[in-house]
Amino acid sequence: MLAEIADVGRDPVRGGYSRPVFSSGERTLVDWFTDAATRRGLDLTVDRNGIVWAWWNPAGAPLQDAVVTGSHLDSVPGGGAFDGPLGVASALRAVDVLQARGVQPARPLAVAVFPEEEGSRYGVACLGSRLLSGVLEPERALALTDADGVTYAQSLTAAGLDPAAIGRDDETLGRIGTFVELHVEQGRGLIDLDAPVAVGAAILGHGRWRISITGQGNHAGTTLMADRRDPLLVAAEVVVAVRRIAGRHPGARATVGRIQPVPGGTNVIASRVDLWLDARHVDDLVTAAVVAEITAAAQGAAAIEGCAVEVRQESLSPTVDLDPQLGARMARTLGGAPVLDTGAGHDAGVLAARVPSAMLFVRNPTGISHSPEETVEDVDADRGALALADVLADLLADGAPAERP
Amino acid sequence: MLAEIADVGRDPVRGGYSRPVFSSGERTLVDWFTDAATRRGLDLTVDRNGIVWAWWNPAGAPLQDAVVTGSHLDSVPGGGAFDGPLGVASALRAVDVLQARGVQPARPLAVAVFPEEEGSRYGVACLGSRLLSGVLEPERALALTDADGVTYAQSLTAAGLDPAAIGRDDETLGRIGTFVELHVEQGRGLIDLDAPVAVGAAILGHGRWRISITGQGNHAGTTLMADRRDPLLVAAEVVVAVRRIAGRHPGARATVGRIQPVPGGTNVIASRVDLWLDARHVDDLVTAAVVAEITAAAQGAAAIEGCAVEVRQESLSPTVDLDPQLGARMARTLGGAPVLDTGAGHDAGVLAARVPSAMLFVRNPTGISHSPEETVEDVDADRGALALADVLADLLADGAPAERP
Repeated sequence: MLAEIADVGRDPVRGGYSRPVFSSGERTLVDWFTDAATRRGLDLTVDRNGIVWAWWNPAGAPLQDAVVTGSHLDSVPGGGAFDGPLGVASALRAVDVLQARGVQPARPLAVAVFPEEEGSRYGVACLGSRLLSGVLEPERALALTDADGVTYAQSLTAAGLDPAAIGRDDETLGRIGTFVELHVEQGRGLIDLDAPVAVGAAILGHGRWRISITGQGNHAGTTLMADRRDPLLVAAEVVVAVRRIAGRHPGARATVGRIQPVPGGTNVIASRVDLWLDARHVDDLVTAAVVAEITAAAQGAAAIEGCAVEVRQESLSPTVDLDPQLGARMARTLGGAPVLDTGAGHDAGVLAARVPSAMLFVRNPTGISHSPEETVEDVDADRGALALADVLADLLADGAPAERP
Repeated sequence: MLAEIADVGRDPVRGGYSRPVFSSGERTLVDWFTDAATRRGLDLTVDRNGIVWAWWNPAGAPLQDAVVTGSHLDSVPGGGAFDGPLGVASALRAVDVLQARGVQPARPLAVAVFPEEEGSRYGVACLGSRLLSGVLEPERALALTDADGVTYAQSLTAAGLDPAAIGRDDETLGRIGTFVELHVEQGRGLIDLDAPVAVGAAILGHGRWRISITGQGNHAGTTLMADRRDPLLVAAEVVVAVRRIAGRHPGARATVGRIQPVPGGTNVIASRVDLWLDARHVDDLVTAAVVAEITAAAQGAAAIEGCAVEVRQESLSPTVDLDPQLGARMARTLGGAPVLDTGAGHDAGVLAARVPSAMLFVRNPTGISHSPEETVEDVDADRGALALADVLADLLADGAPAERP
């Protein structure tokens, strides 16, 4: 099924795919999804936040307490083929399997496609599910701008949506009894376990901090080494400390991927350097300890060089536990599938605060994601879709939905 | 005199002055210079390369073997008030002193203003003197573009100059018997010597190398620390090594002021990092040794992290010795002024290959340059202009020019 969209949104510069939300690439995939869903006899709706729903409701029951699966079709710049589309294609495949088995759902089933999961165009990940569940104010979302200065409001209008209508949508949330998102694994957990599919447990808490170091801008040729107060040296010592400190806390991930010296000239000692720290751990207290140790290391290095340092938190999301009863039930259904945490954010993590939510991860033989090197073997993609079908069949057979959080 | 131009080209964002070549700010200063020179009875000419000449030739001698002084009026972004303009204003002031003393030059005297000394608009420092002396091909200069895509050819045309006429100009070079450039010191040499004025000796050789480190781009949240091949960690270890290695070689200056991770996202482990090394020493062999040690350190750090490293030389200028006989004569004229090397490039360093050239440095109490914090005390500016007048008077009294290099 993914072969049908293998040519959409390819990135000739970075490799892989660049399918930002509301771009022609992502919209082509949404059209592909609606066509595929219609061919399967599903009923299409688009809610106020631009989430696309494909309903299978043979009992003609009211659209509530549904079993919902799905994922997203947008990508990071130069991303892989599976991050998002695998979950959508597996959902359609699972519908095929259930229909072939003659399953008659006792509750409605829906496949959902969420916009701007990656946050790669508007800077806020899981934008659609955040708006739906009310954790992001519509005014803030509408004012977001992309790199070309196009607001989210303008993108919604161009996509035929009403900017005034977005925001918390309890009617749509009320239709979701259970949410199960299948996703390519973005790490090496299943490689190490030698297993094709796992059930998700926790989505690691993470935060973003800006570390600003101020020194003394000066001429690179005339300033003796002993006379320097170079903020880029301090920044480099921070990057080295980040690796050392994260390594002391098992399971912690701490990354500097962005660094900006000012003025940034080859023959100029920088006057200021900004760098950004991304830190994550399943235990929010460990994340805080890692950041505190890195802050202390930055202050120590800055003091030696005669620089000043400021550490400012830009965002912080605590660890989200997916529904443990639901996860345990799915693991049993799948004959004892392993249970894994993930360090990546997902719409399921946002929805978990409002509805019982779970995830399935499918093995990625490279362990690499957000890169053209992300991959899934065909046999594992099949196993994932079948696992999803089994999980959905089990949930659909059960008229009583799980208790809401 | 500098108070007259204190409001021209101020930079409201960076502080200090931004006067790129052929900008309205720099052109206003050139107009100010031509007015001031005209008021002093000097004859203005503009040569094929846009260098502005103000001639004092009371003997009516042919325009050859002249004593020439001067500097530049362009600045780096957010530069100080003295880098360039101090040499031009001091030259005019020296003419005033010589005229007041009733000096009748036996040889012509000229004050010259060179375009694009900083290279801050077109990326090649000392562009005017390089074209004049023939070390830069006109075709290469004409094709240079600024940050807005404006070519040097277009800038010349807009300034009323003929792009087809630029290039090596032996007629103009033949007019220069001796060149003396006065400049604000861009280091702390005169602070340490507790002296207001020094004679220049050598202009340190310098080079620029691009260090490219390639690793494995990946997701910041899902990639365990042990699974990473992070080129930004290697880059940070290079920056730390640069400081350590330069510190082992007395007199060496080595700087990283520019670093670019790709893709540069906060939540992405970089796949590649480019950083630029600026290295300088009066002994070109020491510069080579410093770069070799830094290259070895980069390769060692890259090997440990599983990254690849490539070091590419982008430019290399050997150390230039200003004319030693001329410098010794000037030091004697000034009653035993100290002699200093400089780590900054100057038009005098380019011209030194073709004509006997020398420099005077004036104390900068902050030791900082290419920054609004660069400064010169009024009393030292006076001492510098008087020292230049004394040096010019001595050279003008001598009918026989120094031997050409």
